[in-house]
Order: sequence, then structure tokens, then C-alpha cells
Amino acid sequence: MKYCFGVDIGGTTVKMGLFSTEGELFEKWEIKTRTENEGKEVLPDIAASVRSKMEEKGISIEDMAGVGIGVPAPVSEEGIVKNSANIGWGYKNVKKEMEELLPGVCARIGNDANVAALGEMWLGAGKGCSNMIMVTLGTGVGGGVICHGQIIAGANGAGGEIGHICVNYNETEKCGCGKTGCLEQYASATGIARLAKLRLAKPHEKTILEGKNLSAKSVFDAVKKGDRIATEIAEEFGAYLGHALANMAVITDPERIVIGGGVSNAGPALLPFIEKPFQEKTFFANKDTKIVLATLGNDAGICGAARMIL
Amino acid sequence: MKYCFGVDIGGTTVKMGLFSTEGELFEKWEIKTRTENEGKEVLPDIAASVRSKMEEKGISIEDMAGVGIGVPAPVSEEGIVKNSANIGWGYKNVKKEMEELLPGVCARIGNDANVAALGEMWLGAGKGCSNMIMVTLGTGVGGGVICHGQIIAGANGAGGEIGHICVNYNETEKCGCGKTGCLEQYASATGIARLAKLRLAKPHEKTILEGKNLSAKSVFDAVKKGDRIATEIAEEFGAYLGHALANMAVITDPERIVIGGGVSNAGPALLPFIEKPFQEKTFFANKDTKIVLATLGNDAGICGAARMIL
Repeated sequence: MKYCFGVDIGGTTVKMGLFSTEGELFEKWEIKTRTENEGKEVLPDIAASVRSKMEEKGISIEDMAGVGIGVPAPVSEEGIVKNSANIGWGYKNVKKEMEELLPGVCARIGNDANVAALGEMWLGAGKGCSNMIMVTLGTGVGGGVICHGQIIAGANGAGGEIGHICVNYNETEKCGCGKTGCLEQYASATGIARLAKLRLAKPHEKTILEGKNLSAKSVFDAVKKGDRIATEIAEEFGAYLGHALANMAVITDPERIVIGGGVSNAGPALLPFIEKPFQEKTFFANKDTKIVLATLGNDAGICGAARMIL
Repeated sequence: MKYCFGVDIGGTTVKMGLFSTEGELFEKWEIKTRTENEGKEVLPDIAASVRSKMEEKGISIEDMAGVGIGVPAPVSEEGIVKNSANIGWGYKNVKKEMEELLPGVCARIGNDANVAALGEMWLGAGKGCSNMIMVTLGTGVGGGVICHGQIIAGANGAGGEIGHICVNYNETEKCGCGKTGCLEQYASATGIARLAKLRLAKPHEKTILEGKNLSAKSVFDAVKKGDRIATEIAEEFGAYLGHALANMAVITDPERIVIGGGVSNAGPALLPFIEKPFQEKTFFANKDTKIVLATLGNDAGICGAARMIL
């Protein structure tokens, strides 16, 4: 057994975990993300925290398998980030800098959404699968595609950007990316609130959503209480997402599709809204693909980051 | 240097090639596909042909890297085919049978469309790329997705079935697969003929397509002569294909997209019809993805089959 560190860099905190290469999580903690001065201190802070944890636990360089890091930006196969607005970085060779900060330790770098997918595959809802798609329904829609147990990072580190699949060629409102009809406009937390607002602007029967702060949570809370309008909104969300997942399945043929992110906190009630349109539109060979909820929550990032080392 | 054989099993002939592991094609030939008796003789015929070529060329078992075989059916990672209508097979462990027929020789099995993609990556239009998508526009639409230099075979051997991406949720006519709105209904040779028929059934100006046998070839021949109606048909085909490719690119982020199959015989005139809608709908990170024509023609299958051995 060796040790590895999993690091998940976010805009406000850096999550860190100490793992065994067998997948045991010994300890997790957080440090602040110091984004000032173009994020110059972020990597040195991580290196210092790794070194101090190694000292505390009596872990030598020889006991270390490496440090994996998830970054909120596209990352090239060589571990280079071209731009990461959230942490202030411009061009940065993250792998090289990290290995200079921790001599003798191997570093691996990945995009945070891709890395979270790898985490669910290793220790969460995708355990035992080597072909899997993870969809993260948060403020935006992110994702990670795993084939043969490997993250599909792509030629520009932009693999798995599944929030920007076009699901509606008739859309006129623009997505944040500048295109129209992106999955993110319907299936993110923001997208569900938008669908709810549009639905309530049309003639409708009585609904408990009326006068409420419209959010993914208020919609799914109302669904659980049997509200008809909320159920219609959930059906619309599910149709866009389920159809997009069917189109993804025909490309990479996953064994399991894992749904994570804040929207997935709605729990198992979410799944039928996605499964029904998925089954209606999926290719016969993908009928057995299981759609399941993520299980690692906020730990997916550190788990996947550590997994990159293996 | 070692030798490898690439074998491409079709419904009427088996194409075979003798390669060096460096990618030199020394010789290619064909044998008949004997589909009678549930295709019982297909693998023994291939083994006999390999043995006789080895004898002819003085190649010993020690000089052999292996035999790669492309099969017109989904193939599991273990080299098992569950059903291949075209060659009469039911369940068949192709890898195991082939290795029993050629003791000491390693066999690798893949789906024919996926294998063709690997061939273009190795020796054709995708040379030097490790992230690539190949789309084969023939009677149907097939394809192969390559990430990190590896075919994405998927959990059921059904990866890269990109003809069955849904590109039109309003379609009422059924695809051969039983779904509606599949890419194959618009972008295959049959699909283009269908679009032409539908267009000519509507009011239209004078066109040289009138009274012609409507096919992908006649449409693109008319496009080259400046025919307006044919150009409209090509634009409709290109919009469906270009948009589908943009949705694929956002998932696997390929460096290059290779267009092959009979329809691609239209030549470079085909590309702008695909590139324009691709650029309109693609995610900013995929703007540099190149769309190019396949270069290996019918040899892509044997090349990719041999490449599986490396």
C-alpha cells in the first residue's frame, strides 16, 4: 500500500484528502483558495499542506504514489491550464510547477468535473464500471465521460462538456457560452428555475409554486407534494436531459449514467423524469444502461483526484 | 519488425492484408465469405488463408504479432459477438476460436466501423491524431470514436453507433432501428435520396434532378453543376450532420472528424455543407476541430484490424 493525496481546487476553498492507493480515505480537510495575485499562492499552499500532512503522519517520499489535482478549467493531457477565471490563473503548467514544489512526487492534473466522474467510478455510484458518464447538475451542467476506466479529456481538455450539447434547435435565448439551445439552459439549477418562470408566465391552474422563490429545489419539493404544474416543469426538464443522455449513450455506450450536483439532492424522485424519456429515445443496444444518483457528494472531487494517480 | 494480418469480414467477401507492425501494407487479397451453415467456415477459411500466406512468405509464429479481425456486429471487449445477421453467426467467441485455429497467434476482434476508424487514424486521414471521430456515410451511417488512440467500444460493444443520434425530434417516419429522427435518416446515401424525394414532392423551381434516379451521387453531381434545388438538399443533409457532429465534439473533443463511406466519394465539394453548420453550433473549445475526407477507402478495415494488434 502507498499513500496518495486528492486535491479539488474551488474558487473559495481547496478540498484535500489523504487516501491509500486501495481507496481508503484516511482524512479530509480544507484550506483557503488564495486567488489574489493571479492565484500565485494556490499551488505553494497546497504543497505546504501536503508536506505538513506527510510530516504529521510520518509518510516518506517513498511511501507516496503521488498527488492528483482537479482544476475548474480545461486541462491538457500534459497537465497545462490555459486559463482559469475562478482562481485567477492564466497559462500555467500545473503538473510541472507542482512537481517542482514537491520534488520526487508525481502529480496528475484533471478538469474538476471529469475528476469528479472518476471519483464516482472509483468509490461511488459507478463502482465497478469502466464505462460511465457522470452528469453534474449544478449552477451549470458539467460532466465527465469515462471509457475503459479513463477520463475522456479530448484534444483540448474539453471532453465531457455535456452542458453544451444542443437539445433545442428552436431556442432563441442565449446560453452563457453564446450558443442557443444548450442542455445547461434546461437541466441546470438555473435552467430549471428558468423553465419554471416560463411555465408560470403562461396560463396555468393553481400551483403551490405561485409567489415562491422559483428554484430547482422549490420545483422538486412541489413535485413531491403532487403539484401538477411542478410535475409538468420536471417533465420538461427530464425530456431535455433524458434525450441528451440517449444521444450520449449511442456514442460511448456506458454501463451506468451517474447524476450528481445540487439538483440531484432532490433524490430518487428525480430519476423517473429522466429515465422515461431516455428509454423512449435510446438505441436498443443501450436499453440496459442504468441511471443512478451520485453517492459521494462533495467528496467526489478529492476521490477522483487521488484516483488519477493509480 | 513483426508481421500482422488485418482481416475485414463482409457479407460477401473477406478482405485480408499482410502488414508490418510499422504500418507497411505488403499485400492484400480477398476470399469468399461462406455464410452457409451459420457461417461455420468463415473463421477456418481465414485461418487457412493466414497459414498459407505465412508459408508462402516464410513467416514463422515467432515473426507474428497477431491477427486483427473486423466484424459487422457489436463486439464485446473480450472478443465475443452475440449476433451477426450478415454472416450467419449467433453467439460466437471469435477471439477464442481464432486463437484455437492459429495456435500461438494472438487475435483481436472489433466492430467493423470502429476498426475502420482505427485504420484511418493509423494510416489515413487521421494520421497523428489520438482523438478522432470517423463517420461512415454508406447505406447507413456508422462510425467509430477514438480517444487516447483507443476505440471506444462501450459496455455492450455498441460505442460509436452515431447513425442513431436523434437529430430531429419532430420526425414521424421510422428509422430501421425503430426510433424516429436518427441521423441515418438524413445523412446516409439512402437518407439523402429520401431528402431529395421529399424536396421534389414539394413545389420547386426547375432542377436537373427531375426525372433522375434520386441518389446521393445524383444530388452531389447536380450540386457541382450549380443546381439550386440539389444545393438546398445538400444544405439540409449538411445541417443535420454538422449539428450532430457538433454535439459529438462537445462529448469527446476530437482533433479531427473524418468523413468516409460511399457518400464521401462526392469529394471536397461535400465538406462546406458540413463545416458551416458545424461551426454555427459547435462549442467554442471545439472550433478548431478539422473535418476532413477519409483517404483509405475500402482498405480502412484491413488497416484498422491490423492496428488492433499493436
